[in-house]
Amino acid sequence: MALITLLTDFGLNDEFVGVMKGVILAINPQARIVDITHGIAPQDLVSAAYRAQAAYRYFPQGTVHVVVVDPGVGSSRAIVAVQQEGHVFLAPDNGVLSLVIDAHKIEGVVRVTNDQFFLKPVSCTFHGRDILAPVAAHLSLGTGMERLGPGIAAENLKRLPLEQPSFNADGTLTGTVVLIDGFGNLVTNIDSAAVGAITTPAQKREVVIRIGQHRITGLAQSYADVPPGTPLAIMGSKGYLEIAVNGERAARCLEAHRGDAVIVG
Amino acid sequence: MALITLLTDFGLNDEFVGVMKGVILAINPQARIVDITHGIAPQDLVSAAYRAQAAYRYFPQGTVHVVVVDPGVGSSRAIVAVQQEGHVFLAPDNGVLSLVIDAHKIEGVVRVTNDQFFLKPVSCTFHGRDILAPVAAHLSLGTGMERLGPGIAAENLKRLPLEQPSFNADGTLTGTVVLIDGFGNLVTNIDSAAVGAITTPAQKREVVIRIGQHRITGLAQSYADVPPGTPLAIMGSKGYLEIAVNGERAARCLEAHRGDAVIVG
Amino acid sequence: MALITLLTDFGLNDEFVGVMKGVILAINPQARIVDITHGIAPQDLVSAAYRAQAAYRYFPQGTVHVVVVDPGVGSSRAIVAVQQEGHVFLAPDNGVLSLVIDAHKIEGVVRVTNDQFFLKPVSCTFHGRDILAPVAAHLSLGTGMERLGPGIAAENLKRLPLEQPSFNADGTLTGTVVLIDGFGNLVTNIDSAAVGAITTPAQKREVVIRIGQHRITGLAQSYADVPPGTPLAIMGSKGYLEIAVNGERAARCLEAHRGDAVIVG
Repeated sequence: MALITLLTDFGLNDEFVGVMKGVILAINPQARIVDITHGIAPQDLVSAAYRAQAAYRYFPQGTVHVVVVDPGVGSSRAIVAVQQEGHVFLAPDNGVLSLVIDAHKIEGVVRVTNDQFFLKPVSCTFHGRDILAPVAAHLSLGTGMERLGPGIAAENLKRLPLEQPSFNADGTLTGTVVLIDGFGNLVTNIDSAAVGAITTPAQKREVVIRIGQHRITGLAQSYADVPPGTPLAIMGSKGYLEIAVNGERAARCLEAHRGDAVIVG
Repeated sequence: MALITLLTDFGLNDEFVGVMKGVILAINPQARIVDITHGIAPQDLVSAAYRAQAAYRYFPQGTVHVVVVDPGVGSSRAIVAVQQEGHVFLAPDNGVLSLVIDAHKIEGVVRVTNDQFFLKPVSCTFHGRDILAPVAAHLSLGTGMERLGPGIAAENLKRLPLEQPSFNADGTLTGTVVLIDGFGNLVTNIDSAAVGAITTPAQKREVVIRIGQHRITGLAQSYADVPPGTPLAIMGSKGYLEIAVNGERAARCLEAHRGDAVIVG
Repeated sequence: MALITLLTDFGLNDEFVGVMKGVILAINPQARIVDITHGIAPQDLVSAAYRAQAAYRYFPQGTVHVVVVDPGVGSSRAIVAVQQEGHVFLAPDNGVLSLVIDAHKIEGVVRVTNDQFFLKPVSCTFHGRDILAPVAAHLSLGTGMERLGPGIAAENLKRLPLEQPSFNADGTLTGTVVLIDGFGNLVTNIDSAAVGAITTPAQKREVVIRIGQHRITGLAQSYADVPPGTPLAIMGSKGYLEIAVNGERAARCLEAHRGDAVIVG
């Protein structure tokens, strides 16, 4: 199977995504194309980085993941292909792959420069159509990554300066709301390892989570663990601590925003 | 063909729908996946029930229809598989299949409990990814429904308390606006049988439809039957009476909302 | 390959698009279906015409392009199939194909009347489901266009009265903002031939573009040619002059709207 995923900030009201699919299918009529999302806010690299991380592992090895959030399109920023654990990622080298790349697992990185695989003429404003889509299609046909351009060192890939949770002197942990999902749930950057570092499993019913003036005691096992309209904290399906309100939008009920501090412990 | 449809309240701005597709394709690379809609308002079971009813019959027999509007995810609510007229429906047992299920046509119901077909570990908050998607993929590969879990009686499936039109003493009929579509058209719960019960075909040009202070005479054959900006009533493509305004949004022009009464006769 | 594209104003919150796909796959299980966009504003024929023009050429020959923006659904307006350069377009005859059709390249036009290929009963309000989808599926199976109905002359196809840029007595050119894309970029109706008619390549760094009170000097090569927050003019990926603001929404920054005049020269 030749499977290609697309993750962009193009939205669905323009023809951009459809055009990328046309370009892919004109080169590889057998390609299967799956949309991860095209609803990333324009040029929101952080959000795209978290979505790419949350999604890619559910696809089979051999999948080509195309990520196009590209404020520098047409400038001298590079386009890179990264192979890791049998997946290939194609994206501008602007940090959007920061949460996907794991130095211990990376199998190769190239700078995509071989215009033999590009759609010509290459425009200045739509490399998703002219470079990333056709290159993904060629990869899905079996073209080796080494043919795309020169290898580069993984250390040289751009990284976003993403906030990390920090341990406080009083034994608590301070993290951040990094995403708000479509249900209004607050996704933090606090993963289960960080929670585990400050609590034993037995303490998970007593740990206190604070956001703004709100205080939640214990980690819930499901939204329905608390009465409707009540806030809860839960290890979310992305592997990060989330704050929700049963049956409501936590972002609205708690007047919370991206970047808000969340204190655990 | 292995055809799977998806109908959820996940929206398209998160990676949730893409992830479900990854899970399906990792199990059955040949599956064809069609989105019915992911734009159901969060936890709006009634709207999802009407959309599922309007959509499924247009797919070929053998299609697996996955419906994930699931306010009780992670609680003790069941997940069920229902076979009817050669289609299989997979959904939480919360009434979302109320308008699909026809006691006279049902061919089998099971409670989905066999975790051999689940993605593990099963999260508390995303059974669409961890249970419904992989089970749908296995069904699309030919796994028999009886292997998913114990059979249950169709009468025990949850039903939504959906409003039904009522016949009035003066020979008129009172129904309700149950949906407003993307064009602003008002979809009622009055089907052609109900209209037929109070009018002869000849009377369809004279029947009066009232909503709020507005009064429409006769059933139109097309939007263009009336001048632009004029309200009309028409038997809609879902099989229910709809109120529209030619070239405009009826919901706005008539200041109408879901739940508004519509009187016919 | 049997490839079908869909371009509609149905939005994605209703089940309409999913239903069209069900109808297609019930007839041709091998069909590949690509969404161009369903986010055309209701009944916005001009926007749909520009998107169809921008998209179709990236698909392989043999693709069937279905365009459903259809304010006259159910009235006496015709549905037509147009073959051009190996592509087939299916749409209501209301001008939505105005920018696709090229009199010098057209290979055939028929009025779609043969109800042998329709889904019955044909509703009055959803010809996308009942006529266009099944006809597209049959075309994708190899049904010859001549079987759909009588041939008609290309000159008789409806055309939208689209504004064209005009040359002014002082040697400048006045065009119009015809679209605003999802990034807030302003797409004009001024193509590269029109720009070429009033400037030499050497002058492209000096040409002045005016919109409202704003004045931009020179055509940029990429968004990043100017500092963040600065307006620029650029030949866009659709082949038309666009006005953007680096990293921002030009429509908001410049308080610009569809229909605004853009003067070049």
